[in-house]
Amino acid sequence: MKTTNENCFLLKGNIIFTKSNQNYEVLEHGYILSIDGKCKGVFSQVPEEYSSLPITDYGDKIMIPGMSDLHVHAPQYAFRGMGMDLELLDWLNTNTFPEEAKYIDLDYGKKAYSIFVDDMKKSTTTRASIFATIHPAGTTLLMDMLEESGLKTYVGKVSMDRNSPDYLSEGCAETSMKNTNQWLDACKGKYERTLPILTPRFIPTCSDEVMVALGELHKTTGIPIQSHLSENFGEIAWVKELCPTSKHYGDAYDQSGMFGGHDGKAIMAHCTHCTQGEIDLMKANDVYVAHCPQSNTNLSSGVAPVRTYLENDLNIGLGSDVAGGANLSIMRAMADVVQCSKLRWRLLDDTLPPITVLEAFYMATKGGGSFFGNVGSFEEGYELDVVVLDDTLLPHPQPLTPVQRLERLVYLSDDRHVVGKYVAGVKLF
Amino acid sequence: MKTTNENCFLLKGNIIFTKSNQNYEVLEHGYILSIDGKCKGVFSQVPEEYSSLPITDYGDKIMIPGMSDLHVHAPQYAFRGMGMDLELLDWLNTNTFPEEAKYIDLDYGKKAYSIFVDDMKKSTTTRASIFATIHPAGTTLLMDMLEESGLKTYVGKVSMDRNSPDYLSEGCAETSMKNTNQWLDACKGKYERTLPILTPRFIPTCSDEVMVALGELHKTTGIPIQSHLSENFGEIAWVKELCPTSKHYGDAYDQSGMFGGHDGKAIMAHCTHCTQGEIDLMKANDVYVAHCPQSNTNLSSGVAPVRTYLENDLNIGLGSDVAGGANLSIMRAMADVVQCSKLRWRLLDDTLPPITVLEAFYMATKGGGSFFGNVGSFEEGYELDVVVLDDTLLPHPQPLTPVQRLERLVYLSDDRHVVGKYVAGVKLF
Repeated sequence: MKTTNENCFLLKGNIIFTKSNQNYEVLEHGYILSIDGKCKGVFSQVPEEYSSLPITDYGDKIMIPGMSDLHVHAPQYAFRGMGMDLELLDWLNTNTFPEEAKYIDLDYGKKAYSIFVDDMKKSTTTRASIFATIHPAGTTLLMDMLEESGLKTYVGKVSMDRNSPDYLSEGCAETSMKNTNQWLDACKGKYERTLPILTPRFIPTCSDEVMVALGELHKTTGIPIQSHLSENFGEIAWVKELCPTSKHYGDAYDQSGMFGGHDGKAIMAHCTHCTQGEIDLMKANDVYVAHCPQSNTNLSSGVAPVRTYLENDLNIGLGSDVAGGANLSIMRAMADVVQCSKLRWRLLDDTLPPITVLEAFYMATKGGGSFFGNVGSFEEGYELDVVVLDDTLLPHPQPLTPVQRLERLVYLSDDRHVVGKYVAGVKLF
Repeated sequence: MKTTNENCFLLKGNIIFTKSNQNYEVLEHGYILSIDGKCKGVFSQVPEEYSSLPITDYGDKIMIPGMSDLHVHAPQYAFRGMGMDLELLDWLNTNTFPEEAKYIDLDYGKKAYSIFVDDMKKSTTTRASIFATIHPAGTTLLMDMLEESGLKTYVGKVSMDRNSPDYLSEGCAETSMKNTNQWLDACKGKYERTLPILTPRFIPTCSDEVMVALGELHKTTGIPIQSHLSENFGEIAWVKELCPTSKHYGDAYDQSGMFGGHDGKAIMAHCTHCTQGEIDLMKANDVYVAHCPQSNTNLSSGVAPVRTYLENDLNIGLGSDVAGGANLSIMRAMADVVQCSKLRWRLLDDTLPPITVLEAFYMATKGGGSFFGNVGSFEEGYELDVVVLDDTLLPHPQPLTPVQRLERLVYLSDDRHVVGKYVAGVKLF
């Protein structure tokens, strides 16, 4: 990895980004100016005062902002694409928990996590919010590897102290919080690019004591939160049973201060079946929705009403949710969003128009990126996350516009097409 | 392409195929015996009498039967993955018809079709039933290229003489049939692997005169039929208007003898919204359903009740339906079948259980393959279509079973993983 973080430079190519979900910003054969890791804007000519800066010319290639994966389970990467004939709760017990238990073994963790990190590095993703397991040492191992990769991520040691199998449980609230604090101590000041995030798996596996303690920690430290919300009907019914005094699933988090608000940031994955009460609370608390269309399909959970979330102006980004989702690619997640929204429109509710590729692009870049700060756009002041795409492996009999080429890549690309990547001004490859 | 058609040989590797959709047949490090283009069966040891035959050892790679793409439009390959924010009829007028009109120019056709043929050759597909355009010369050009590729295919010059734009219409029934006969004459006796198939685009673009004449041709020559059936609600309503005396869309074909039966073979693409009457007639007439899940998603058509078709014991295979579908891969179509059936189950009708990967594998291989004869299995007497898959590019921290490896490839593979291919005993690569 060649560090150019302290340098200033220009990148030349076909630039596409979006400031909102209303239109593409396109500059053919334009320049992106990077000053100390930040974007100074895009230009059709090199500004006079920067004419001495080095230029990397990507020719006819496409440059887009790096993408954010708001929800992904690193330890599940090993079984992606297998055993998806189950719904959520059975799938957790049959496939997920036995695999996650293996990460107490750091040798296994190293072998498995290295595959995950390598593949994420090769993808269009520059930022991610990642679940590890309940194991503090395994979690810092993953953080070490992510730090080394050059990606900028949040990583969470998972909290689980109830309704969990013996082989994957922290046993009680006290041990769970001891583990969490031990892990937070271990990563304090250690990383430049890798930050901890509080990660109660979901309400069913976390006692009230753990939730209250995590809520307190969130409040005092400002460390953000990630968890799951209203993914699947069976799960929602279970939460209702477990938390009879909650107005809804989201309220069960909010009662412990674990649902954003109070200047605290929170990502809730899925939101497949949110009630209006949950939507209103997410809006009030600035909660991020991590929309995971492929996972919600593979586990037969349903399709989240993304159009409703956009209309309610919620914070929303995309998640691969490996291994509920089989594919780590956020480009693929963009296609999945569009496709799933079409089936939702046709099969369930034709009052919510399907999501467009442009809207999916917004969610993949600036929408999800905003969780990480000024990320996901080439507007001035944004962190310089760039992905360079080469579509020459997808020949076409006639010239295409940059936006047509991007749309095609959304449906057809894989890691072969990602030929350059910068994170906060640092060149990864 | 190295021709081994007249040779006898053995292939060694991890063998997976299915005789029905009830279970996988798996033979680890087994042998497939090929005698004059046909499979003599699979063996765990080389039978004594064949011990002198040459063996190609694929090591730990996976060998599966070649797959059949029962529905794909070669001239639409150029715009796959673009402009899919429209429903069928608008999409035809906006994207499809203007592109198909270009194939009157053989230079353009050569450039565009070569991309399609190259990519199909690299995929898991060994057999396909393909739509060309209304242009006889362009259609034989495509057939020349497919013949050269080593794939075994049916190709159809499209019939369109009404409700078609001036720039893509045969004008009247007489011209349409003249074109069809001219094309059939041109390809008579010309090809070893490439056969003509009668191809009325769909009821709306074919006059009764054309349908009756094609029906007569079908009856006298035995040339099979391919067309579209009950894909989209707007289209179905239009057919009802155009054919007020038909009991249903399928009956509109049947009235001209263009719906299978009478020892004639027919593929009907989509069948997204078939009535019980259509299902009964398809069963009675041995019509093939080409299920195209990704296309039906991209064009917001819906999800076909595949479970119902399986329960009714219909002939059913998969179609990529490029460019309604963006991906040419039938492996991808397998994942799409499973995923779409899950959303159908969750969103529309929970009486029809989702399709399993095994059932999708059956449809992709033996189910669709049966349209081409004894194709899509490693049972004795089947034509020797083999695809060799290498999953070393998808590393895993622990050993997997052959079926787990196949399932992962269904969700994650691309053309990089297809490292060997035989069609009727001929090695393509």
